[in-house]
Amino acid sequence: MKRTDLLKTLIRKNDTKMVLLVMDGLGGLPGPEGMTELEAAAKPNFDSLAQRSELGLLDMVDAGITPGSGPGHLSLFGYDPLECSIGRGILEAIGVGAEVGWGDVSARGNFCTKDGKGIILDRRAGRIATEKSALLVEKLARNIKEIDGVSVRLYPGKEHRFVLVLSGKGISEEVADADPQQEGVPMRWAEARKPEGEKTAAVVNAFIKRAAEVLKDEKEANCCLLRGFSSPPDIPLLPDLYGIRSLAVATYPMYKGLARLVGMDVAKAGETLEELFDTLEREWKNYDFFYIHVKYTDSRGEDGDFSAKREVVETVDGLLPRLLALSPDVLAVTGDHSTPSTMSAHSWHPSPFLLSSPFVRSGDAKSFSERECRIGAAGRMAGHKLLGLMLANAGRLDKYGA
Amino acid sequence: MKRTDLLKTLIRKNDTKMVLLVMDGLGGLPGPEGMTELEAAAKPNFDSLAQRSELGLLDMVDAGITPGSGPGHLSLFGYDPLECSIGRGILEAIGVGAEVGWGDVSARGNFCTKDGKGIILDRRAGRIATEKSALLVEKLARNIKEIDGVSVRLYPGKEHRFVLVLSGKGISEEVADADPQQEGVPMRWAEARKPEGEKTAAVVNAFIKRAAEVLKDEKEANCCLLRGFSSPPDIPLLPDLYGIRSLAVATYPMYKGLARLVGMDVAKAGETLEELFDTLEREWKNYDFFYIHVKYTDSRGEDGDFSAKREVVETVDGLLPRLLALSPDVLAVTGDHSTPSTMSAHSWHPSPFLLSSPFVRSGDAKSFSERECRIGAAGRMAGHKLLGLMLANAGRLDKYGA
Repeated sequence: MKRTDLLKTLIRKNDTKMVLLVMDGLGGLPGPEGMTELEAAAKPNFDSLAQRSELGLLDMVDAGITPGSGPGHLSLFGYDPLECSIGRGILEAIGVGAEVGWGDVSARGNFCTKDGKGIILDRRAGRIATEKSALLVEKLARNIKEIDGVSVRLYPGKEHRFVLVLSGKGISEEVADADPQQEGVPMRWAEARKPEGEKTAAVVNAFIKRAAEVLKDEKEANCCLLRGFSSPPDIPLLPDLYGIRSLAVATYPMYKGLARLVGMDVAKAGETLEELFDTLEREWKNYDFFYIHVKYTDSRGEDGDFSAKREVVETVDGLLPRLLALSPDVLAVTGDHSTPSTMSAHSWHPSPFLLSSPFVRSGDAKSFSERECRIGAAGRMAGHKLLGLMLANAGRLDKYGA
Repeated sequence: MKRTDLLKTLIRKNDTKMVLLVMDGLGGLPGPEGMTELEAAAKPNFDSLAQRSELGLLDMVDAGITPGSGPGHLSLFGYDPLECSIGRGILEAIGVGAEVGWGDVSARGNFCTKDGKGIILDRRAGRIATEKSALLVEKLARNIKEIDGVSVRLYPGKEHRFVLVLSGKGISEEVADADPQQEGVPMRWAEARKPEGEKTAAVVNAFIKRAAEVLKDEKEANCCLLRGFSSPPDIPLLPDLYGIRSLAVATYPMYKGLARLVGMDVAKAGETLEELFDTLEREWKNYDFFYIHVKYTDSRGEDGDFSAKREVVETVDGLLPRLLALSPDVLAVTGDHSTPSTMSAHSWHPSPFLLSSPFVRSGDAKSFSERECRIGAAGRMAGHKLLGLMLANAGRLDKYGA
């Protein structure tokens, strides 16, 4: 039986409050002093919380697998990311803040250059400046609003990137990439992967031809490539699975979008760390489950800046008492993957987590750290099991079998 | 490949003796002194054993899932409880000590009251006294022995509960509950869930009508409801899978019944803890595998009595030398789930276990405790894998592949 189905059969409701605090890319590797960023941080509030929590390590996808933000978050939201995946196009779309409806098809776009014979010269149009790229997107959007009854929306991204969202009857994500994946070769046009993708492939190819028309006098880019055609994943939503009213408290579009895909409401949460906690306090009475997303642990890890990542942990530690003052029944703190600043990238290392409730086997942990999590009472487990464990600790799961 | 199938292909026989000592609901949560019941117990024999054992934690079903006794024991007997389940009716039947054959269909019965128009008034007949209920069961049994060639057996339970067991040709568990699940509405009659359930549904409905006839002048209850129709699970038995002669040494009907369902013989084991060990000594030469069930760790946990649960551990510790004197080749000690006395209920927390054999990586454990199990050499694993690990330690499994 799938775990989500099992949990669904066991659900009972109560008025407990659960909080999942995700510090993106939290886990690290030993730095200059032999400690990770988390271990090196002065974080008295997290350490005190750890002493009355169960600690452990989460594999978001599987041992040795480095999760992207999509699979990492799906796992934290209780879905096995190897069973339900999020397409590239939809991830890119929610990353730029596009509103994507359930049947819509999204794709990642690249501005590119081609010669008079249609040979692709530069797949990224010289990594065209973001500002210029946005102007080209605007020009396309002004000229192409609809193709064959399908509405076309465009959103600018960084440098040569943009996002295409199609809405309309009879469209499907079953379309192979319209991208030759190399330079010096002709354009590869969109093709249906299944019969239901044929209309969409035709619309995509019509779009590319009209885009080339609109862009024909532009110096930087005179065509575009499209790939990763995808619709929102067909997964059961959190309210339907677990009967929980859940709220995402996040500042970045990508994480708001991921939360929306699983059925969370999304708060207006401002831009700063303080505003995350303001939002939490303001919405406390309205929801059962709160997902709070702190981006900067990951950003500073990606920068390769050990001290800056450590300092983000310390800043959040300073804000933690505001969360604790709300007395959540269950509180989990973890990342969606590790981002060691020594690697300046996401990594496969399991994510340290702590789980606090009146029903934990709190142990001998002195602090919240990768070392303590390794010998923690919750052990090492699949990331997608954390949500169920939170529900159990909230008294929201009945016994399985008599 | 299913694990049971894998193990079956690797089995070799020898004359080793294996013992699985199940202390029901063994695992706990920290109590008044910050220690669990197991940690607080004075248990020199278990602690000494732990020093030469591998320790670990078992998830009987999955992280966060609280097992009932059925799934908990199936797991300990080597079956993944998410792949093979035990129906409510059969579990209730073995719980009251009913003899249930392989094709028989069992159901949970409730005495109830209905009005002249057949509206169900009280689904539990005022939680009728157990003694009175037993008299009604007797009266029904005297009057209804057979319906349409199907034999009918009845067993009293607590208060308004009883058990119905049907035996005969052409019966099937594919019958939906004959229970409206609410009061103030008409009776819901049994219906087949699949064509093979039609005969059984007809027999069940005839039984209910005849029962209402027999009971029509009774004050306390004038009808009955039946639900959880189920046959013994269709699973491969231990002797067939592993070629082991296995014996259950248990005092309560439920656990004897569970053992019988997987192909164990069931000893006459008396009623006291001492008699469990008497039985073990008496039967030692006759079997390869012994399952000993101690009920009272769970009972005292369910009572919420920390000290009493601790004392059961201490009592069993005093008897442990008798088991050790038999020199089992492999000995495992664990629970079928946790029952923290702080929760007065089964819980999802993994069950501490120890495994003793000449082939364990015994470590630095000083005692048998949740804390030591957490960092033990066997780690945290699925409960249904323990039996295979016992077989391995008994030298009863060949190498997999060349």
